[in-house]
Amino acid sequence: MSDPISPRTLLRAAVRAVAPYEPGEQPAPGRRVIKLNTNESPYPPSPRVLEALRNAIDGALRLYPDPEAQALRSRASEIYGVPVDHVMAGNGSDELLALLLRATVDPGDPVAFPVPTYSLYETLVAVQGGKAVHVPYPDDWSVPESLASAGARVTFLCNPNSPSGTAAPADAIEALARAVRGILVVDEAYVDFADGDAMALVGRLPNVVVLRTLSKSFSLAGLRAGLAFAHPDLLAGVRTVKDSYNLNRLTQLAAEVALADLAYMRANVSRIRATRARLAAALEELGYRVPESQANFVLARRPGVDQAPVAAALAERGVLVRHFPTPRLRDALRITVGTDEETDVLLGHLAALARLSAGGGPR
Amino acid sequence: MSDPISPRTLLRAAVRAVAPYEPGEQPAPGRRVIKLNTNESPYPPSPRVLEALRNAIDGALRLYPDPEAQALRSRASEIYGVPVDHVMAGNGSDELLALLLRATVDPGDPVAFPVPTYSLYETLVAVQGGKAVHVPYPDDWSVPESLASAGARVTFLCNPNSPSGTAAPADAIEALARAVRGILVVDEAYVDFADGDAMALVGRLPNVVVLRTLSKSFSLAGLRAGLAFAHPDLLAGVRTVKDSYNLNRLTQLAAEVALADLAYMRANVSRIRATRARLAAALEELGYRVPESQANFVLARRPGVDQAPVAAALAERGVLVRHFPTPRLRDALRITVGTDEETDVLLGHLAALARLSAGGGPR
Repeated sequence: MSDPISPRTLLRAAVRAVAPYEPGEQPAPGRRVIKLNTNESPYPPSPRVLEALRNAIDGALRLYPDPEAQALRSRASEIYGVPVDHVMAGNGSDELLALLLRATVDPGDPVAFPVPTYSLYETLVAVQGGKAVHVPYPDDWSVPESLASAGARVTFLCNPNSPSGTAAPADAIEALARAVRGILVVDEAYVDFADGDAMALVGRLPNVVVLRTLSKSFSLAGLRAGLAFAHPDLLAGVRTVKDSYNLNRLTQLAAEVALADLAYMRANVSRIRATRARLAAALEELGYRVPESQANFVLARRPGVDQAPVAAALAERGVLVRHFPTPRLRDALRITVGTDEETDVLLGHLAALARLSAGGGPR
Repeated sequence: MSDPISPRTLLRAAVRAVAPYEPGEQPAPGRRVIKLNTNESPYPPSPRVLEALRNAIDGALRLYPDPEAQALRSRASEIYGVPVDHVMAGNGSDELLALLLRATVDPGDPVAFPVPTYSLYETLVAVQGGKAVHVPYPDDWSVPESLASAGARVTFLCNPNSPSGTAAPADAIEALARAVRGILVVDEAYVDFADGDAMALVGRLPNVVVLRTLSKSFSLAGLRAGLAFAHPDLLAGVRTVKDSYNLNRLTQLAAEVALADLAYMRANVSRIRATRARLAAALEELGYRVPESQANFVLARRPGVDQAPVAAALAERGVLVRHFPTPRLRDALRITVGTDEETDVLLGHLAALARLSAGGGPR
């Protein structure tokens, strides 16, 4: 009889070394909270999307989906003015990020990104066995000058960036794409809330990948749909590592219909941008510093004052915001732009908490 | 100005070497065919699933899904009698296969499986940079004796096997699990159509992973839902490499409701098993040899006679079956068990084609 096997020894060393996945806080079903912690849209998906989905709930769900998501990709091609062979669809842009690294990064290969940024990049590089190269953002959140000189196989630029909400201008992105010898992934998850984007680089520069998601501006986080735009030779390699049927039938349909109803998305974006301006101004009134946001959230900083207690106090009052317990971010809160009503509730609680911490007690 | 970058050089060498992904034949929308080529169920999903889905098409789709799929996993725990921490949910069992390899296989690690079998194993091992060890099935499709001695980090056993439809008995699987020092993945995609399963090994043997899918017996191929059952320490590593939100809201719900309506699934399975027996007998009447199938398809072989022309002739007549152009399978067709009516149409065409090839011409 052989020794019993310890299951952990069956894992790769690189995987054992990765910090276990920490899901963001999910309120228990039925608990009424104001959820401003994961940058979802406060508005529902387009009524056209909901109607199309209802009409698609039938026996055809027994059949595999289109592995190439052709209808969705054709629609994206039309909307974004990019040839259809430059478009790939994913189970959220998170899947596309993972597939990109699996297709391009061997153990030890450097992958560069400015920090702080979307923390998933770090995890994905570790899982792939790559070497993460962190280049700190300067205080003004502009693209760090040394980013291009990292010699990276892949460089990530989240633009607008999370958690800062700030955006680099198109000419800075083009300069970065021309300066790196590897791939530049411009993660535009929040770009519909911004003034510009990098889509014009796709097709012009062979090493640029632009990522989009339907989770934010299109209000479809629950269905997982993302898009990658890049040179077809690059996408062919990424397709090699994807699951055949990565995107289910309903998500393909919802994403296609959502892209066809741009007016609905744009109306929501206008409302969110207006609320964002009001939120940022009110936070500054309360003593926070807020870099100019081009996303559907703001980063509110009170220099030197740990905001973990504030996040906890807000959660007790039923308002979830995001706090990152890292040296550079501990004095900040990342707050999703909700509806005007949700924003008023948040601001009311923040004002009351500020009076409490000033020693005045409740009035 | 630097040289232009060739996009293909930005890919990993291992990825450039993988044969490009070949999607199975998808009939154009609107084309009426009898689809017996990808082992979908001929029956629609449970009416309870469809009703639950319709009721879930609402504004909550703007919110991220539960990253842990807790409701679905609890239901699976209850149905299969396995603790909930031994259950993981995936975007189809294909995703779970890919995640398992990413969590356990480093470049050069051996991964063993009997052949011929589900061809995705080969692709996934190549992408991960592992070394595929092929152990041929004997003519009786029993578990090859040398499989355990391959020294593999992961061993796959598709049971019932595709494309043979044959199943290894539970004691042979347990003996294999005890003989290997690495992980044994028992891919039970088709097990609901069989007489036995290996679920009892989960929890008893720390190196066993049992995979299930909702794509076949539960008629949900279009929604992508799979389940992995294994020791929690092993699943913790697999969870490290999964996308946070790998399973969308609607799929989680559909899978949960489908598992709760086992009676509906079992009634369909009974019908399919009855049709399978009739199909196998009729194929043998037509001169095919059909190993005893425990799946929702049969492998029909005419020894030494290439079946590619037969598959093509059937496709011309609107009936899609699967032909694999490999030395060991070129004289065989893999035929999904459809409805009785679909089966009659198939058999009619096969009989007519046999008369044609016998030189008699149409009568």
